[in-house]
Amino acid sequence: MDAREYLKTCAAQIEAELSRMLPPANERPARLHEAMRYSVFAGGKRLRPALCIAACEACGEKSEKALDAACALELLHTYTLIHDDLPAMDDDTLRRGRPACHIAFDEATAILAGDALLTLAFEVLVAQSKGGALAAELAKAAGSRGVIGGQAEDLAAEGKQPSADTVEYIHRHKTAALIRAACVMGGLCANTDDNALEALALYGENIGLAFQITDDLLDESSTTEELGKNIGSDRERGKMTWPAIHGAEKAKEKADALIAEAKNALTTLPVDSSALSQLADFITQRTF
Amino acid sequence: MDAREYLKTCAAQIEAELSRMLPPANERPARLHEAMRYSVFAGGKRLRPALCIAACEACGEKSEKALDAACALELLHTYTLIHDDLPAMDDDTLRRGRPACHIAFDEATAILAGDALLTLAFEVLVAQSKGGALAAELAKAAGSRGVIGGQAEDLAAEGKQPSADTVEYIHRHKTAALIRAACVMGGLCANTDDNALEALALYGENIGLAFQITDDLLDESSTTEELGKNIGSDRERGKMTWPAIHGAEKAKEKADALIAEAKNALTTLPVDSSALSQLADFITQRTF
Repeated sequence: MDAREYLKTCAAQIEAELSRMLPPANERPARLHEAMRYSVFAGGKRLRPALCIAACEACGEKSEKALDAACALELLHTYTLIHDDLPAMDDDTLRRGRPACHIAFDEATAILAGDALLTLAFEVLVAQSKGGALAAELAKAAGSRGVIGGQAEDLAAEGKQPSADTVEYIHRHKTAALIRAACVMGGLCANTDDNALEALALYGENIGLAFQITDDLLDESSTTEELGKNIGSDRERGKMTWPAIHGAEKAKEKADALIAEAKNALTTLPVDSSALSQLADFITQRTF
Repeated sequence: MDAREYLKTCAAQIEAELSRMLPPANERPARLHEAMRYSVFAGGKRLRPALCIAACEACGEKSEKALDAACALELLHTYTLIHDDLPAMDDDTLRRGRPACHIAFDEATAILAGDALLTLAFEVLVAQSKGGALAAELAKAAGSRGVIGGQAEDLAAEGKQPSADTVEYIHRHKTAALIRAACVMGGLCANTDDNALEALALYGENIGLAFQITDDLLDESSTTEELGKNIGSDRERGKMTWPAIHGAEKAKEKADALIAEAKNALTTLPVDSSALSQLADFITQRTF
């Protein structure tokens, strides 16, 4: 199975489960529940859930063990997209080829839908037997010392002279933290040992950084239709990116080096990690 | 000890603990961490933490056992206030006598500070031995079927003809859900039995509804200086309130009846519940 097929298989599993978890769109307050479903079912790659499942499998457990954690990751990821797109934040009107949540609904509903998805992510996790450790990992990755901290620095840096240190901080926090957590959580679901968790963390951190660099390269070279979001908007806002600082070629080399390092970390894992390896390659080879 | 003294004692405990939990204001991203501290240390009554601690004590355990849960409740409550005040939501500029978070900082920072406090609330809880049960209770109370659902319906109802059913829904979800959870979580911290948890839930639900009715009465009769927030603004926006539907006198009677019912529920609790009883009386007698 190659990475694209693996992602497809995971997405089908995840989406069925997400639909079960989310309140029905006609349940009061209906507009809020509609908005939550609208954004969750906007057709993402489901990369973070797939990484969580692949990490669980690479530690010798069945994918089912990681399903709830995988869903929690996607719920949380979706909330970050909704809030990032808000007018006060990145002010993006298009997401995954459709109007952003605050455009399709309204700003208040988008704020609340994001809040509710974040809350639901933890509700889903703590219902698990290993819920405490999983939720601790997710909260650390998602909080002010993780994703939210990255977004805060990203906004603060807009329009300023790019500094390599700040770009590094933003990428590690805004993007890599959650991808890393996805991998570690998959290991936790498989009840794996600390050595394996460390390898998964290293793998996740590296593909996370490569993912962001690739995203920025795509933002420079693709069309709005291809990406399903407004492109070139990062540059317009003076966002700091790897390609902007180091040039496209150096950025591509850096991404490749990170993927190589990530794959190297996998060699210490106890069982078959070919899915993780293929997902790592997919990160830099993707065109969307 | 009367309710005011009890609240003061709890507030001192809680605030010391909150300061330990929150990232330092000079830690990167500093503006975000400043905003989180600004809103948490705006000088609230700390009613929800106090209820959590009192419920724990009423079940025979020391206040220390409930301290982390109490802090998580206040972190979560503070996030709801920050997001509720946003321009797209209730658009309030004043909170606890000071500029609202999005005025003192900016909208993006306020959104992120709210997100980070919500995330931190769960991080604090799941570090507990009974973290799973506590986080499950908090997530249920705070999610789209709780506080967030109440806020969504509240916004949807603005400017419409008040319906008693909708007002009931909004108050139960927006206000009572978290106050009820505070009481139940206190019981969980004391490792109490299901009967006691049920009594605490009933107590919490009733004082929660009485709290909201009293809030609406104060909004009609107080000054901005007394309440530390812009008053009369609810009526201006056509918010549905108990006093608006049933008149001030009937509303006062209803609040008193709810307090009586709440105090009645306490009679089944195993140990001394005088603090909870005094806090119930305080709900309707307070002037701020």
